[in-house]
Amino acid sequence: MTIRITRLPSGLTIVSDPMPHLMSTALGVWVNCGSRHEQASESGLSHMLEHMAFKGTRRRSARDIATEIESVGGDLNAYTGREQTAFHARVLKDDTGLALDIIADILIDPAFEEGELANERDVIIQEIGQTRDTPDDLVFDLLQEACFPDQPVGRPIFGSEEKVAGFSRDDLGGYMARHYRAGAMVLAGSGAIEHERLVEAGEKLFSRLEKGSEREYEPARFEGGETRSDEELEQAHLAFAFSGVSSNDPDAYTAQVFATALGGGMSSRLFQEAREKRGLCYAIYAFAHSYRDAGMVGVYSGTSAAKAGEIAPLIAAEMQAMSTGATEEEVARARAQLKASLLMGLEQPHARCELMAGHLHIYGRLLSTDEIVRRIDGVDVEAIRRFALKLCEAGNPAMASVGPVKRLESRARFASRFGCRAA
Amino acid sequence: MTIRITRLPSGLTIVSDPMPHLMSTALGVWVNCGSRHEQASESGLSHMLEHMAFKGTRRRSARDIATEIESVGGDLNAYTGREQTAFHARVLKDDTGLALDIIADILIDPAFEEGELANERDVIIQEIGQTRDTPDDLVFDLLQEACFPDQPVGRPIFGSEEKVAGFSRDDLGGYMARHYRAGAMVLAGSGAIEHERLVEAGEKLFSRLEKGSEREYEPARFEGGETRSDEELEQAHLAFAFSGVSSNDPDAYTAQVFATALGGGMSSRLFQEAREKRGLCYAIYAFAHSYRDAGMVGVYSGTSAAKAGEIAPLIAAEMQAMSTGATEEEVARARAQLKASLLMGLEQPHARCELMAGHLHIYGRLLSTDEIVRRIDGVDVEAIRRFALKLCEAGNPAMASVGPVKRLESRARFASRFGCRAA
Repeated sequence: MTIRITRLPSGLTIVSDPMPHLMSTALGVWVNCGSRHEQASESGLSHMLEHMAFKGTRRRSARDIATEIESVGGDLNAYTGREQTAFHARVLKDDTGLALDIIADILIDPAFEEGELANERDVIIQEIGQTRDTPDDLVFDLLQEACFPDQPVGRPIFGSEEKVAGFSRDDLGGYMARHYRAGAMVLAGSGAIEHERLVEAGEKLFSRLEKGSEREYEPARFEGGETRSDEELEQAHLAFAFSGVSSNDPDAYTAQVFATALGGGMSSRLFQEAREKRGLCYAIYAFAHSYRDAGMVGVYSGTSAAKAGEIAPLIAAEMQAMSTGATEEEVARARAQLKASLLMGLEQPHARCELMAGHLHIYGRLLSTDEIVRRIDGVDVEAIRRFALKLCEAGNPAMASVGPVKRLESRARFASRFGCRAA
Repeated sequence: MTIRITRLPSGLTIVSDPMPHLMSTALGVWVNCGSRHEQASESGLSHMLEHMAFKGTRRRSARDIATEIESVGGDLNAYTGREQTAFHARVLKDDTGLALDIIADILIDPAFEEGELANERDVIIQEIGQTRDTPDDLVFDLLQEACFPDQPVGRPIFGSEEKVAGFSRDDLGGYMARHYRAGAMVLAGSGAIEHERLVEAGEKLFSRLEKGSEREYEPARFEGGETRSDEELEQAHLAFAFSGVSSNDPDAYTAQVFATALGGGMSSRLFQEAREKRGLCYAIYAFAHSYRDAGMVGVYSGTSAAKAGEIAPLIAAEMQAMSTGATEEEVARARAQLKASLLMGLEQPHARCELMAGHLHIYGRLLSTDEIVRRIDGVDVEAIRRFALKLCEAGNPAMASVGPVKRLESRARFASRFGCRAA
């Protein structure tokens, strides 16, 4: 590994991880700004800004941006998360300079032209409509809100139609000026790239970035709650979550190993019990999401109306069984899955960029592969039992459901299975 | 490139494309059998067989299969297409032997145990339900049927609930015996693998495969037609298709370049016109699918009820504009996109396996990267204009729609925009 980091006087962090055998480059800018940095009145603004970055700069029209990158067969994309927004590209080696130039341009000189803005409002409102038509996406927006009600981290990333319809050019410009500062950004590259090249681009192309670092944001508090959307659909889409751990928590990897053993693959408890033994559903899996100051550990399942009552008791039973009887074998298997998935991910240059930017964001430094592997290996069966017990004892689960969910038990009933009363 | 091919006396084809710098291996078996090989009474059987392969063999229970592969952090998966079914794995280098052993076992010795079968019927019926809840999947099933009505290639891969509920152990065994023959299979590997290793596995582990090659199937004839599913949804999901070209057609790459220029990226005609200029939709893209004896070229868009009337005229206008005025620039850009996407895809071992198995299936030989690049480069602006004209003149479009689609024009009206009468 030949990872190198440079911090420019402006505060911009530049990190590279060359893979000289590749003929393509992955690179991008990860900004420490996402939907949780928004005030209530700003909900959806990070995402709209991500869209509008592509809609033209002083030097380039929206069409120029698309045409320039695609003329060389490159791919330029972006996504908005709760804590970060990323603008990234994949190009053949010789086109690395072009990709850097375009990404810098859209981040530093966006035009936010009124006509484009009017158009893009409509596009985003349509994107919100698409999410509503995708129940296994929608249920996660509802779950997030149930976990973190009335908090920025609990709001949908896309915002609401009303909010989106109201954002102005000044809203975008002001938000960008406050949040898109050099100290809040990581420029990361991997694949057919040299560190010097990235640093040179960082110095020249990003020289006009304002100094300053990430802005404060409202702390997250997992509260729990429930949202039901009883609708006529083929499947009941059910999501459950418990208070998890923050990214910096010593148990951050414990949460990952736990979720993997509970429902991370075909050999996991939930998949074996719900799908393989009982044919209750096609889809069931567990997940652990961590934010900087809070987290959630949960389960999604898509099942039929008739069987929608059987998933919640099953989850409770398996979580409790893990708190007393998690086995050496299943925990070792979960560790092996996480480690292999890490190593295989590192074979892809985009994944390397994302991992590095994530580490710099969370820890302020890079974790080596060895260090990550050591941390995963440090999660033993005792840690998993203890972690499962903590989840079971904490109470206040969050629940969200979309579809024919009449048979899904109440949140109070679900909480009582853990000996808790729902708040 | 150090691709090697070996054909065993049984007819099994083994192909490898080592990437020695990787620490993981991708491998799998691609079977020349998919939903188009099914009789009407067998609809969904290929897919059910794909599921049941994971549900136990003489030596391994379903749980053993999942546990063995995941104990080493490996990933074992499968998918069923219209012409092929694939069983593939990704593992770290040292676990290549295990992955080969499991894949051979599930393909040669599946148990098709009655209890597992009863369970899996329920799981697949749930999977069908999930598709119904995903309008942008459902609309493609409806489109396929509108293109190829009452033909095996037009039927949904998953089959129907009724069919799935009725399949027996004997149905599965009989179908497998007829179709899963050595001459109809390609064993492909890439990444940290040696050809000798694959051949050795092919000889030992697959020695009990019956000789024989792919079975005949009913020819496909693009007919056109329409299915509307007027439902209460946020978005109108619209799909359109025209008769395209078969995989072996000299115009197979012309179709790809055409679809890319029409709607393959941000710079494409449809994206620019529909999303960027007019804000009509969040999603719009074109595609070209080729089967061995037929094909389709089409467009998907998700839009609002209010704007659902504007997409069809736009598609007709852009296709006609391309037939007379496709530009050198846009065609060159589409070629660059296809070539870069090919080259970047080749950086992933699974994509290499899939490409090789596809070539052996379609052409009976491998196309070198240079040869593919030459064929893409051979598509000039004249070819694109001619291809667009052929599509426009052929008439008989297929249309499918799900959601609030009242404003979508009739198929007769859409066909008349091309000067055609819908059959």
